Amino acid sequence: MAVSFDSSPLESVAGGVCAANGFKAGGIKSGIKKSGSADLGLIYSEHPCTAAGTFTQNAIRASSVDWCENSLPSEKVHAIICNSGCANACTGDEGVKNNGAMAAWVSEALHLQPETVLTASTGVIGEQLPMATIAPAITELVGSLSPRGGLSFAKAIMTTDLVEKESAVKVHSNDGSYTIGGCCKGSGMIHPNMATMLAFICTDALIDEKLLSKIIKKSVDRTFNNLTVDGDTSTNDMVLIVANGHSAIPITHSGAALFEEALFTVCNDLCKQIAADGEGATKSVEIVVTGAKNEKDAKLAAKAVANSNLTKCALFGNDPNWGRIACAVGYSGATFSKKHMSIKLCGVQVFKDLQPVPFDHKKLHTLLKSKTVTIQIDLAQGKSEAIAHTCDLSYDYVRINAEYHT
Amino acid sequence: MAVSFDSSPLESVAGGVCAANGFKAGGIKSGIKKSGSADLGLIYSEHPCTAAGTFTQNAIRASSVDWCENSLPSEKVHAIICNSGCANACTGDEGVKNNGAMAAWVSEALHLQPETVLTASTGVIGEQLPMATIAPAITELVGSLSPRGGLSFAKAIMTTDLVEKESAVKVHSNDGSYTIGGCCKGSGMIHPNMATMLAFICTDALIDEKLLSKIIKKSVDRTFNNLTVDGDTSTNDMVLIVANGHSAIPITHSGAALFEEALFTVCNDLCKQIAADGEGATKSVEIVVTGAKNEKDAKLAAKAVANSNLTKCALFGNDPNWGRIACAVGYSGATFSKKHMSIKLCGVQVFKDLQPVPFDHKKLHTLLKSKTVTIQIDLAQGKSEAIAHTCDLSYDYVRINAEYHT
Repeated sequence: MAVSFDSSPLESVAGGVCAANGFKAGGIKSGIKKSGSADLGLIYSEHPCTAAGTFTQNAIRASSVDWCENSLPSEKVHAIICNSGCANACTGDEGVKNNGAMAAWVSEALHLQPETVLTASTGVIGEQLPMATIAPAITELVGSLSPRGGLSFAKAIMTTDLVEKESAVKVHSNDGSYTIGGCCKGSGMIHPNMATMLAFICTDALIDEKLLSKIIKKSVDRTFNNLTVDGDTSTNDMVLIVANGHSAIPITHSGAALFEEALFTVCNDLCKQIAADGEGATKSVEIVVTGAKNEKDAKLAAKAVANSNLTKCALFGNDPNWGRIACAVGYSGATFSKKHMSIKLCGVQVFKDLQPVPFDHKKLHTLLKSKTVTIQIDLAQGKSEAIAHTCDLSYDYVRINAEYHT
Repeated sequence: MAVSFDSSPLESVAGGVCAANGFKAGGIKSGIKKSGSADLGLIYSEHPCTAAGTFTQNAIRASSVDWCENSLPSEKVHAIICNSGCANACTGDEGVKNNGAMAAWVSEALHLQPETVLTASTGVIGEQLPMATIAPAITELVGSLSPRGGLSFAKAIMTTDLVEKESAVKVHSNDGSYTIGGCCKGSGMIHPNMATMLAFICTDALIDEKLLSKIIKKSVDRTFNNLTVDGDTSTNDMVLIVANGHSAIPITHSGAALFEEALFTVCNDLCKQIAADGEGATKSVEIVVTGAKNEKDAKLAAKAVANSNLTKCALFGNDPNWGRIACAVGYSGATFSKKHMSIKLCGVQVFKDLQPVPFDHKKLHTLLKSKTVTIQIDLAQGKSEAIAHTCDLSYDYVRINAEYHT
């Protein structure tokens, strides 16, 4: 029965990866992390899922990335196991074997075929997975599965993240309702390229793996890829999406636009949560580029500013040092009007028509103390736009990354 | 009279930009900097000089960069004025006028044509030069010129630099002796792209401006450009070289190789001094890439590691976290052997044939406390090499760059 809505067809709901029907998840403290925090998570669907993913462009890739990329797209995925505390990257043949063993143990415990289990890892590069610790923990892990286990899973995949990151929407389509829920981890936001970003998204929509692949790629390109730079990704980055069809709502080409909008909403929400939890961040920063000749240029400019250490240090110091923003735009490679490029900081015009604009330093210094800061750049060259999310660069970023390994 | 040498034809000498005969220099405290430090420097040669330069690739450029690039190559340069404390970038038409006025004032005081005076600026972007402060200081600046003024000039161009940076060699060629001396400033080494790097090199060799242009470009490409990334340069970056012919030793194509070697020696020495004085640096880091398919790949890999925040934080923490190095090589875009790529840290093999190599963590942790740390990467793909210089990323980098403007 077709239903129409006056308001938005997207309703924010709780539950993370278990928000959609038919999914169970769980997380346990297996002992991989010396800190004793949760470090092993599992997602499971009794129904086989269509599944797709996007993968790091790094030439050095974790075994889990190869495993998943070889398996996907698929129409028979049942489970995803993810460990934190060890990236299982740069670990050679032993790493490949260990990754396969992890999938095999989960498949045995759940009576599945190993190729229906996806794997993901995050943590220190160059160390082998402690298989003697993981093996006996699999039974407990499977036992932790619950339809309300989304949060446990989200906690189990954290590394330097301070908070778990979940997002889910219920989609009221003309054909009925389905849900898309997900969670992610990642907080090394200064050079996002090297901090593992993992996202897991579960939906009970009924969608074939080819369309799912196409839509997840588009969504990631509009969201997570504006946190990262092409070719500048970690050894372990992945976004995985699984669809178990439990809602029986088919996503065909006619319903694809709404599914895409909903997926974008979840991905974008997760991105913002990553930016806000950037390592050592005291504030999140949104860079809005308008007036670009094309989308590529808009992204180039937004990312150059998002990756500028000097800009981010200035923001940490609440310093309206917009010259560093202009400089980053200048070297970004984006085309801009040499006459009319302009910059606003917290809504205050600081640079217009390539000339400095006088402003109240004290007032802007105060505005910069907000938890969220917006940088608006008008390239005055066209009509394309892009948004990048990042955070400031603080003493704590250095502390976290100087102390992380030892 | 031809003279032959058993030992190296290059002799290290003192004097900086005044090491070569016929050059005077000076520096004064004009009041541009609120701190009261020296902020105005001048180099002068009575003989007209052939001159050449290399310039920032940033699309937003300081007026001084445009002024110099329009003037060069030239065979009649007499003076270079450089101010610190204000970059005169993003300052619109007024900035262009002010830059021209600075050259005009110097040319009047020294009875020269304005176009024989080169200009350079470094400091905060987006603020106008305080012309009312500079105008009355020109007489004092010209009065400070001395054949022993190299150090005063080197001090006057510093911003966040902790030490002045000079280098000079006397070249004993078969045709007789000449000298190449220089100085530079620049210490924002974490993303070198955004910290102004200025270098001034003076020689009394007799060399035409075309050959001088060709050789300086090659030398910069082998040295300063391994501190910076193409297209990733500040609004003000420049390397200027002037040759007054005072030695009467002609550099023709036969003597060009020795001149080039000497110039490389000076530039490379200045580069190392910049790396060691990186903002907040506790140690300098040399990244040596060997076994590359070609020079481009060698540079890509070396620069990716040099620009990796995570690697640099780990080095600050004396943490042998080589996985971050491998990860940077992986996303650098350089081709490497998937079977035989290897990494040494402080001479200790940590990664070989793409597998981790067991090593004594405690011992390597101690080695990493040295003032200079070497990272060796063998791509095992060919015979090309490159070296990049950088420093670690410390709390002080953040402090300096959070507090610099306000």
